[in-house]
Amino acid sequence: MAIKVHGSPISTATQRVLATLIEKGVEYELVLVDLSKGEHKHPSFLSLNPFGQVPAFEDGDLKLFESRAITQYIAHTYADKGTPLVTQDPKKMAIQSVWMEVEAQQYDSAASKLIYELVVKPHFYGQSGDEVVVKEFETKLSKVLDVYEARLKESKYLGGDQFSLVDLHHLPSLNYLKNTKAWDMFESRAHVKAWVSEITSRPAWAKVIAPLQK
Amino acid sequence: MAIKVHGSPISTATQRVLATLIEKGVEYELVLVDLSKGEHKHPSFLSLNPFGQVPAFEDGDLKLFESRAITQYIAHTYADKGTPLVTQDPKKMAIQSVWMEVEAQQYDSAASKLIYELVVKPHFYGQSGDEVVVKEFETKLSKVLDVYEARLKESKYLGGDQFSLVDLHHLPSLNYLKNTKAWDMFESRAHVKAWVSEITSRPAWAKVIAPLQK
Ligand SMILES: N[C@@H](CCC(=O)N[C@@H](CS)C(=O)NCC(=O)O)C(=O)O
Ligand SMILES: N[C@@H](CCC(=O)N[C@@H](CS)C(=O)NCC(=O)O)C(=O)O
Repeated sequence: MAIKVHGSPISTATQRVLATLIEKGVEYELVLVDLSKGEHKHPSFLSLNPFGQVPAFEDGDLKLFESRAITQYIAHTYADKGTPLVTQDPKKMAIQSVWMEVEAQQYDSAASKLIYELVVKPHFYGQSGDEVVVKEFETKLSKVLDVYEARLKESKYLGGDQFSLVDLHHLPSLNYLKNTKAWDMFESRAHVKAWVSEITSRPAWAKVIAPLQK
Repeated sequence: MAIKVHGSPISTATQRVLATLIEKGVEYELVLVDLSKGEHKHPSFLSLNPFGQVPAFEDGDLKLFESRAITQYIAHTYADKGTPLVTQDPKKMAIQSVWMEVEAQQYDSAASKLIYELVVKPHFYGQSGDEVVVKEFETKLSKVLDVYEARLKESKYLGGDQFSLVDLHHLPSLNYLKNTKAWDMFESRAHVKAWVSEITSRPAWAKVIAPLQK
């Protein structure tokens, strides 16, 4: 098989890439990297991603890392397969690109911190989250979701009228936050709630998280 | 004039957009937003960027925000003017996109924190930087620069053989860090040092920072 994803099914960044491949109907092989054994810091993995983080990606002799660079490559290279995930219209693409940056620059930094405090610490390290940090990032995320609520009143999806990479990039963190107390923020905003419910029920996403539910 | 940049000449994110426009030789009007008066939180500005941050951008009826979305729009839309800042080759574009993400995800979070502690706090608030925070982000940035040093041994620029948006996106933070104690990290790595010296001496960049040197 030509495409290899080196990663872990529990990693949010890996999930972003898998969701994209499944939406596009592109075949791939998942090469498991065991984070609990520190395999992501072994020289063989560092030759794929010098930052020692999953995922890393190979399509023939092309080697990539950074999940959002990988998803964009897949969406453009396999444009004519499966679900269209990027628009080709230059002005619409510019707007999609704004909201792609919003996910990366505004949403994800707050969401990732909350996942660390509310999911990773209790489940992997048996510690409770730091309440001061949780409050700080709940406040930040809540401001981001106010902007999303206003945007989703005007536009069915964040990047435009169609489901796109912009929405897809949020799926992994939504899935981890949904069993935490931070979830109220998503439920209490009508348009955000409807958007979350629609994008998380996509069949491709169900396939990404199936291994976690066994 | 069709293109308007709403921002501040001292803002790193605004500078990223101005450097791109000047490299491309595209005319623009800079509409000053006075951050010290909180103008970026006024309703008129929030209608351009709901996050209340500079820059915001208008090209005719197209309104954008998030500096990296704006620079990409300019580089693609004005592809045939001035300096080419993105490659058109799909595989090279994928590699450029990896390093674009590295700047945003790995480099900038550490560099911005150091600028806040070592430049903004002392110069704008008369406070000294928090040494614990400085140490933490110096350690992070130093790991990123180790990766850059290895990359720049193989490739003249971060995104490939040509100067591109990837390099340009670093210019504003390099300019602020160069008068701080964090600068040793850049000087002590031969390839990083040569890269910094080359990209910061571009005429377009000199124009961006000219108003700061008066
Ligand atoms: N910006 C990177 C983040 C990758 C990342 O943080 N991966 C995590 C798992 S989700 C990881 O490998 N963590 C281990 C580490 O950082 O040492 C991307 O989007 O690919
Ligand atoms: N991710 C945004 C960041 C913009 C940003 O942080 N702008 C700063 C000035 S460099 C700002 O407006 N700060 C004021 C604030 O956040 O309230 C971008 O790249 O455009």
